Amino acid sequence: MKNFEALREAAAEISDLYAAMALLEWDQQTFMPHNSSADRSEQIGTLAKIIHEKSSSKTFGKLIEKASKEAADLPPDSFEACLCRRLRREFGKTSRIPATLAAKIAGTAAKAHHAWAEAREKSDFSIFQPYLAQLIDLRRRYAGYFQPSGNIYDPLLDNFEEGCTVAKIDPIFRALREKQRALLRKIAACGQVDDAFLHAEYDTGKQLAFVNEVITRMGYDFTRGRQDMSEHPFTTSFGLNDVRITTKVFEKLPVSCLLSSVHECGHALYELGIDKKLNRTPLAEGASFAFHESQSRLWENLVARSHDFWVFFYPHFQALFPEQLASVSAEAFYRAVNKVEPSLIRTEADEATYNLHIMLRYEMEKDMLNGGIEVADIPETWNRKSFEYLGIEPENDAQGVLQDIHWSMGEFGYFPTYALGNLIAAQIWTRAERELPALGESIRSGDFAPLLDFLRKNLHVYGARFTPAETLRLSTGCNRIDPDCFMGILEKKYAAIYGFRAE
Amino acid sequence: MKNFEALREAAAEISDLYAAMALLEWDQQTFMPHNSSADRSEQIGTLAKIIHEKSSSKTFGKLIEKASKEAADLPPDSFEACLCRRLRREFGKTSRIPATLAAKIAGTAAKAHHAWAEAREKSDFSIFQPYLAQLIDLRRRYAGYFQPSGNIYDPLLDNFEEGCTVAKIDPIFRALREKQRALLRKIAACGQVDDAFLHAEYDTGKQLAFVNEVITRMGYDFTRGRQDMSEHPFTTSFGLNDVRITTKVFEKLPVSCLLSSVHECGHALYELGIDKKLNRTPLAEGASFAFHESQSRLWENLVARSHDFWVFFYPHFQALFPEQLASVSAEAFYRAVNKVEPSLIRTEADEATYNLHIMLRYEMEKDMLNGGIEVADIPETWNRKSFEYLGIEPENDAQGVLQDIHWSMGEFGYFPTYALGNLIAAQIWTRAERELPALGESIRSGDFAPLLDFLRKNLHVYGARFTPAETLRLSTGCNRIDPDCFMGILEKKYAAIYGFRAE
Repeated sequence: MKNFEALREAAAEISDLYAAMALLEWDQQTFMPHNSSADRSEQIGTLAKIIHEKSSSKTFGKLIEKASKEAADLPPDSFEACLCRRLRREFGKTSRIPATLAAKIAGTAAKAHHAWAEAREKSDFSIFQPYLAQLIDLRRRYAGYFQPSGNIYDPLLDNFEEGCTVAKIDPIFRALREKQRALLRKIAACGQVDDAFLHAEYDTGKQLAFVNEVITRMGYDFTRGRQDMSEHPFTTSFGLNDVRITTKVFEKLPVSCLLSSVHECGHALYELGIDKKLNRTPLAEGASFAFHESQSRLWENLVARSHDFWVFFYPHFQALFPEQLASVSAEAFYRAVNKVEPSLIRTEADEATYNLHIMLRYEMEKDMLNGGIEVADIPETWNRKSFEYLGIEPENDAQGVLQDIHWSMGEFGYFPTYALGNLIAAQIWTRAERELPALGESIRSGDFAPLLDFLRKNLHVYGARFTPAETLRLSTGCNRIDPDCFMGILEKKYAAIYGFRAE
Repeated sequence: MKNFEALREAAAEISDLYAAMALLEWDQQTFMPHNSSADRSEQIGTLAKIIHEKSSSKTFGKLIEKASKEAADLPPDSFEACLCRRLRREFGKTSRIPATLAAKIAGTAAKAHHAWAEAREKSDFSIFQPYLAQLIDLRRRYAGYFQPSGNIYDPLLDNFEEGCTVAKIDPIFRALREKQRALLRKIAACGQVDDAFLHAEYDTGKQLAFVNEVITRMGYDFTRGRQDMSEHPFTTSFGLNDVRITTKVFEKLPVSCLLSSVHECGHALYELGIDKKLNRTPLAEGASFAFHESQSRLWENLVARSHDFWVFFYPHFQALFPEQLASVSAEAFYRAVNKVEPSLIRTEADEATYNLHIMLRYEMEKDMLNGGIEVADIPETWNRKSFEYLGIEPENDAQGVLQDIHWSMGEFGYFPTYALGNLIAAQIWTRAERELPALGESIRSGDFAPLLDFLRKNLHVYGARFTPAETLRLSTGCNRIDPDCFMGILEKKYAAIYGFRAE
């Protein structure tokens, strides 16, 4: 296994470089003095360049081939076979793309990102339009190197979710969309819940103390992570022993910080639970973007927006804010936290409308890549679809087509993983409920250890050893992503909150 | 200048890698969760390895040669000529040393560092002894690649202070030692100052608020830096727009945090004042270790331990701590801050004894490298010299020979730069007093801008463009380091505090 050991060492060095780059980025978002941003961009660019050179070098490619031969006789689920498979896949994708095209995409994205930021600030799509047009064109050329594929969008989907295709997603989203809209109609027919008390002022220091209590109980290990403040909350890791989260706190949005921290903590618990043997390899991460999102959404929605959760935590929260909540019951608080109301901004959407935001973007990306839409028509299409899916229409581009950063970075195919994550979370949760009869009881007593143990054993420990398809089987026991599982949970939850009859 | 531009870009990438490594180290000392230290060492190791590969590669060496030819006709003080000179010197030193020896030194130092930490904890030199013996031997072999030199210690001195030799330091230290000891005798003959009130408890939050006021007034730019807490205070930079300091605060040592922060801030102001054109090059740092130390010590001793400084700041400090200081006059406080008392630990030494600690180490390093001392005899020699220089003797190895980290890192030749820094500081200060007649007045009114402007114009702006010898001429107007200048200032100061007649 001489070549395998050399490969492992080379991969470990690349992992270290990724960790250094991640720290440069973490610092940029948390503590960096603001006049240093130009230098920081250069530093991140240099690291990215060196990582790219190392991971796409011919030497590295040959080493992967030789090591794969050494590992050929080992079981396919062995560490060696998994690592070779993963590196072969990544190298195979990278090496298909000419360096000039990769550089062109990166360079255009850098400019596009600035244009997007300006366009969003001025709420003027036309500033971003030429860059978006270039990026779509470049990504079409990129996808061209992977033809024939079923759909030109497929190679991009595959970048975020190995094996994911339009042919697989279309039927899932088609079924999901109709059921989500039907649910919204039922909710709209009921009286709206009262959440007036959530619009008072809540001391941010007390909010943070509460959040710390919650994530500590969830099992977040502060000896292998930390929480800081940043403009946009995120999770990042510098190896499996240092997985950090950030959050943001608003005086007038008392559960925003909590839900955001719980979401990021869900991501972090996933990485902290990965088998330590995988450390310093590309297997030391989530199985895919959808699986990562399944963990953040599971904790955010199925745990922190659940009745059981607030049975335990509401008395603590109420005691912190007696002025605002003395006359509010746990029941009323729970309902308010779960108020459903179609809104324009994806990241602020509730559990019942979130996937509709995603499907809108998915349909548009598919059209953009397949040439079914003129770039100039994108805002109008966005607004029309928004009305069709959510019943509301943005008043301007900033609230609409310019709200998300993804396209400005040249990324198409990322959005669907958010919805797939929700669906996978529901399937994992359903299995957990089946295998842990006392799950609800433990959460009602503030004990998350049984749930975390279950997640670690059935998902976290594997990291990125296996394909998403195999990971789905291992973690849910199912062979396919099932929107009905997700919808069943939503129906039952909102039937109780809004008082309609569940199907 | 095609090759020069390529060289500049290659050097910029190496600068970026140094910045990334420095951030990994900064984070390790400030915010890193403690269970991540093994991974962090790997990451730092990988960056160090890549930096070494890039800066010692044959390609890089050839590029330096070609670029130097392109720059040959430019003025020697041009950016291009200075950068080529610097890179040529560094490459020349690195490429003389076989990679196997460099790796051996690094590997032995890593082990030695652990042994030293254990030895210091147990106060048992014998644990460290075999590693120190190896390191001395390795450094002798290292120095062998630079022979003939006047003294085998010279190539090591040159690593910290270009052009520095035993032949140059010996006469300076010989003169200095006698005068320092004579000063101590005069002070000892006077009555001791009373500093009992400095041993009360001082709230650490208020101490930090005071420290922040001081460094802000000194001109520390928080948009290009920040101050955090760490076990051992240090300054680090990630480019010329992000120079950070750390500090440490003790409830029962009310001026320790202040002096430490002012010291680090002195280092930081130096780097923040370097010509921005030098950013992302190896010229974007201090001219040498001694020049760096001259700036930290100038602010720490000649400013923050001065009478003028406390004329302005004592009322602020007293107002923060009325319980402890209501009955203490500014005069009494100033004297207490400047109490002279020979002590065992270098980093806690006062201004009048500090250089004696350095000279003790210099003499020992010289002997160690020249084989004039058996490794087993080092503790005894240390203790004997301590008594000879300072009149006191350590009771154990932890308080004596094991107190400093430098030897455990395989570094010999670093210590003398601390004392040289003190001497240079005095010469720069003397020039500043001459050229800024209102210097004392401005400090007495809390205005440090004239001093900082002077330092920027006469030293900071140059960065590492020139050799230490040239930088000395530019910053002090003198051709040589002059211990009498330093001693003159000390004599005058302590004559006033202790009440003896100055020479």
